[in-house]
Amino acid sequence: MKNYAELWIGYGERQTGRDCINLRKFYLSGAGESDKIVKNAVRELKTGLKAMLDIDPGIVFGSCAETAPVNNGRDIQDREEYTVSLCDDGMAIDAKSGAGILYGVFDVLRSVSCEKDIKEAYASGKTVRPSNPLRMLNHWDNMDGSIERGYSGESFFYVNDEIVIDERTVDYARMIASVGINAVVINNVNVKQAASYMITDRYFDKLSELGEIFAGYGIRLFLSLNYASTIEIGGLDSADPLDEKVIAWWKTKMAEVFERIPTLGGFLVKADSEGRPGPFTYGRTQADGANMLADIAKEYNAIIIWRCFVYNCKQDWRDRKTDRARAGYDNFMPMDGDYHDNVILQIKNGPMDFQIREPISPLLGGLKKTNQMLEVQIAQEYTGHQIDVCYLIPEFKEILGFKTYCSDDKDTVADIISGDTFESRYSGIAAVTNTGNDFNWTGNYLAGANLFGFGRLAFDTDLSSEEIAEEFVRMTISQDEAVVRTIVDILLPSREIYERYTSPLGIGWMVTPATHYGCSVDGYEYDRWGTYHRADHLGIGVDRTDKGTGYALLYNEPNASVYNDPDKCPDELVLFFHHLPYTHKLHSGKTVIQHIYDTHFEGYEEAQQLAEKWKSLKGKVSDEIFENVSERFERQLSNAREWCDQVNSYFFRKSGIPDEKGRQIY
Amino acid sequence: MKNYAELWIGYGERQTGRDCINLRKFYLSGAGESDKIVKNAVRELKTGLKAMLDIDPGIVFGSCAETAPVNNGRDIQDREEYTVSLCDDGMAIDAKSGAGILYGVFDVLRSVSCEKDIKEAYASGKTVRPSNPLRMLNHWDNMDGSIERGYSGESFFYVNDEIVIDERTVDYARMIASVGINAVVINNVNVKQAASYMITDRYFDKLSELGEIFAGYGIRLFLSLNYASTIEIGGLDSADPLDEKVIAWWKTKMAEVFERIPTLGGFLVKADSEGRPGPFTYGRTQADGANMLADIAKEYNAIIIWRCFVYNCKQDWRDRKTDRARAGYDNFMPMDGDYHDNVILQIKNGPMDFQIREPISPLLGGLKKTNQMLEVQIAQEYTGHQIDVCYLIPEFKEILGFKTYCSDDKDTVADIISGDTFESRYSGIAAVTNTGNDFNWTGNYLAGANLFGFGRLAFDTDLSSEEIAEEFVRMTISQDEAVVRTIVDILLPSREIYERYTSPLGIGWMVTPATHYGCSVDGYEYDRWGTYHRADHLGIGVDRTDKGTGYALLYNEPNASVYNDPDKCPDELVLFFHHLPYTHKLHSGKTVIQHIYDTHFEGYEEAQQLAEKWKSLKGKVSDEIFENVSERFERQLSNAREWCDQVNSYFFRKSGIPDEKGRQIY
Repeated sequence: MKNYAELWIGYGERQTGRDCINLRKFYLSGAGESDKIVKNAVRELKTGLKAMLDIDPGIVFGSCAETAPVNNGRDIQDREEYTVSLCDDGMAIDAKSGAGILYGVFDVLRSVSCEKDIKEAYASGKTVRPSNPLRMLNHWDNMDGSIERGYSGESFFYVNDEIVIDERTVDYARMIASVGINAVVINNVNVKQAASYMITDRYFDKLSELGEIFAGYGIRLFLSLNYASTIEIGGLDSADPLDEKVIAWWKTKMAEVFERIPTLGGFLVKADSEGRPGPFTYGRTQADGANMLADIAKEYNAIIIWRCFVYNCKQDWRDRKTDRARAGYDNFMPMDGDYHDNVILQIKNGPMDFQIREPISPLLGGLKKTNQMLEVQIAQEYTGHQIDVCYLIPEFKEILGFKTYCSDDKDTVADIISGDTFESRYSGIAAVTNTGNDFNWTGNYLAGANLFGFGRLAFDTDLSSEEIAEEFVRMTISQDEAVVRTIVDILLPSREIYERYTSPLGIGWMVTPATHYGCSVDGYEYDRWGTYHRADHLGIGVDRTDKGTGYALLYNEPNASVYNDPDKCPDELVLFFHHLPYTHKLHSGKTVIQHIYDTHFEGYEEAQQLAEKWKSLKGKVSDEIFENVSERFERQLSNAREWCDQVNSYFFRKSGIPDEKGRQIY
Repeated sequence: MKNYAELWIGYGERQTGRDCINLRKFYLSGAGESDKIVKNAVRELKTGLKAMLDIDPGIVFGSCAETAPVNNGRDIQDREEYTVSLCDDGMAIDAKSGAGILYGVFDVLRSVSCEKDIKEAYASGKTVRPSNPLRMLNHWDNMDGSIERGYSGESFFYVNDEIVIDERTVDYARMIASVGINAVVINNVNVKQAASYMITDRYFDKLSELGEIFAGYGIRLFLSLNYASTIEIGGLDSADPLDEKVIAWWKTKMAEVFERIPTLGGFLVKADSEGRPGPFTYGRTQADGANMLADIAKEYNAIIIWRCFVYNCKQDWRDRKTDRARAGYDNFMPMDGDYHDNVILQIKNGPMDFQIREPISPLLGGLKKTNQMLEVQIAQEYTGHQIDVCYLIPEFKEILGFKTYCSDDKDTVADIISGDTFESRYSGIAAVTNTGNDFNWTGNYLAGANLFGFGRLAFDTDLSSEEIAEEFVRMTISQDEAVVRTIVDILLPSREIYERYTSPLGIGWMVTPATHYGCSVDGYEYDRWGTYHRADHLGIGVDRTDKGTGYALLYNEPNASVYNDPDKCPDELVLFFHHLPYTHKLHSGKTVIQHIYDTHFEGYEEAQQLAEKWKSLKGKVSDEIFENVSERFERQLSNAREWCDQVNSYFFRKSGIPDEKGRQIY
């Protein structure tokens, strides 16, 4: 018995498909039987079919594609694409690499696990080309075992500053490969203490071993880098990117690192942010810093992923001119085109920090000559700590579908990060991940849908939120139709429900400082983080129009005009862009204050309904899953009630405007 | 060179007194030269006079009083009283015990250190009788070295769960004895982890040694007790005070403890409070719990000090009926008279928790048949963390002088805790102390005035705040007249200044949750702690009148009527007792809102003036002291500015009422 759940690769017994002749033989072409990814794919296929259907399939190898070094650039999509089709006596999986075959195998296993009709599913052949070259998970695991913003126990990568490699490591690789993840950063972007020594002899052997395990499943290993390594471990007194001594140190260091960890894909860097060192310290640009590292890494076919989360985190709350929302744009746009071609800028979906609702970062659609990756967060830092159910795939779909108007066609965020809009050399999508060493990996079983779903969506942007949810439930929890329906009905509206009982109308924050769980309407209002709602007795919101901070104008038209005008701005973002009286009428016909009251009462009520739905599953899902989620729902309801009552009380006490419906406000 | 400052027992060179004939010979009577306290007193006298004046005094021993066991009961005041008078060829110190002689010696040393005219000071003989039998310090030191609410470094009693005894320990005993402290509790009232094992063989030897050191300076050692010891270390499944097994366990345990630590004075117990176990768990009363322990301790001439800080710390903020302020009274008054005569109830000065301004606890003047001790806090938990200067002696003077109307005369708090009002067997005053292993013991040098002052005031309630401040400065910092004046002028108004820039009109709280430093107006408003201001757009305050929670009526008349009426209630407490419109006129003639604006602007300005005064001392006090206090003032000003601007902005935004004087509010 493993001490962790196997979630969607648990491969329990299935009924449908047992008699399907096609599952008895597989023709694999694209990589040969000696390819180590193919070996893993074959093992996976055999194990899976045996466990689910008691079938021992025959394997026939066909032609091999040539293997070339690859680093998740634009060409990788060709190599990861796969086609699954039916033959008379079996199935064919065609690809141009072992990874392609692996993804094809997982496609078949998924169909079996979801009890699809195999013949119907593959009758006309099914070709899937990954939507994004890089599909990455960012772990914020610290080497002492803690996880920054982790809500699922401790790290399974580290114990007491040592790297742990065991059966769970391998199963983790299998699990994320099965949903299409092809890159993983295994340490926190805030690189401190022992993690600064990751690129020293102390950890090379283990990292090399880990890199090989991941590589066997088509996953590239990446490390977060301490920008000030030259000082912290190099003994130099500078980290100036133009300093010859600094450059020389990095050349030697990278030669050593890539020799010792041959599978390493490159580095993720958080510089000049929230107290982390960076090129600004030396009067250099972000491009100077990124390019210096990238030029050296290039020799090893490696890339530098540079985070755009740079802002003034020591703002004065009295200051209404500085706007944190502008910071990413102001810091990175002026150097569009200056970044070398193995640098990728990693851009958070919104201009602030993973709130339940934000506009899209104006860098997406702003930058035109720079490799870009989207960063989202499945760790539920601001979205309920994996206590509250919050299925984030609908939000990610919205983000990906956002029209930036950066070109005449192919102008959505999905287009940009797929590399299609600007034919970028490197691009893709990363998620700050939500795993830990909890038995079920993600704290709340239902939060597993975000890990599963992120991978699935990153691989195939066209999938719907509902399809993904359904797959997750069928593969992980139950194949019973009614159970699947119930859980999907819990997942699908959960993000909007969470939004309703928390921060209204796009203003964000209002969370307990530091922990970010629970309500504190003024928690960040008089603090240094640039996160204000500016509520007074007459109104609320931040004026980010041309008359305020000008942030709205950073978007391409017509977005800029829409956001700049309170009468055109979508309701759900209106307080992000405008300071409005409580009596302002929204498009919905409600006033701002009545919207606040209504959504909060509704949100709490809807959360109760979700919990009721879950209760109906007693005896229909495993006790372990039932108890886990039930206990979380109990805490969610208490949280939702606090949010509802605190927000409503706060605004009633401040505005003096009663609820039209006369409900109890304290 | 010691690695800590010697503060007021530093005994630096003094000028005045050098030629005073009386300082050349001392006639000591009351205890003989073999008494170990007398030995310490003689050593102190010789060392002090040698160091300050280069005098080697002769010592002549007179009659001896008999020595009887004593445990800080009412009779101790007779034994600790001393008289210092002049003789032709020297001075006489008369007392009835070694402790009395020790206090007499410290009186003389203080006069020398303050450069008083010795002949004038003692010409007509000076007799001082301690105002309070028990004068106690409560350490909230944990055995891992941390200190709960400590702002002066780590514990000097404990390192890594071990008790440390060294030169500093002895100097600590000397220092607190010199100001008249005669009892000390050396571990946190929240008894957890290793501290639960204090009453086991693991620590007996060290505790015995520590007890002996303290006893040599007239100080009784006390321990905080884990009420659930029978369960946590005793292996029983109950802590029910009426359970025979529990009683038997305690009998055996106490026999062992008092045999191994013969100097032990008894125990301090925090039960049924903030998650600590207690008799309520078993449906028993607080008296049941206290009496059970006291009856067993009595055999060893020991006492049980039982804290009255019992309240519901899981209150619902929506609930306006439950009133935390009532809790102490409601929990303890009904059993007045039930507590056995070696139990003392320890009562915090106010009904909440050491806010900068609170009414006096109605238990003081309520309880008439119960031994009582007052508890104050010199650890600046809510009063600036020993960053902000806040000289608390003026507050303690107010508390002690409060007329409770519990009897026709002798009805002040000072009268009650002296034991005079009800001729209590045991009584006194305790302070949660502010020390740690910082070089200067109290973080901020000026916070030393609270440690010094608490002892002085506990010993002699008639001393004025100013006299005490002056003594502290002269003995600790400088004898220069101008310097003394400047620092006394900083200390004296500092508490009112702190009050002005923090919570207004007695409402309290508004602090950053958990840390309790810095402003967060709504920080506790929607939380479970029973600490609310109930501000809305029209007004603020808690209705504790007969129409509200009824708390005001818990006082004796005429206090009850005064507090119950907003027109009679003193301004500084008016929001504690009443919910009032912002436009309500105070006795001062100002409206509530204008009072808030004015006091906050003034408080911040006055804090700046204090800092300016301190700056003028550069070169006039030691660099070490100057830099220490300067650095703290810098942080105080930043804190004061935040309080000022946040409180004013909060209430302006909420009320919409502008400042009459048009000052900038954000």
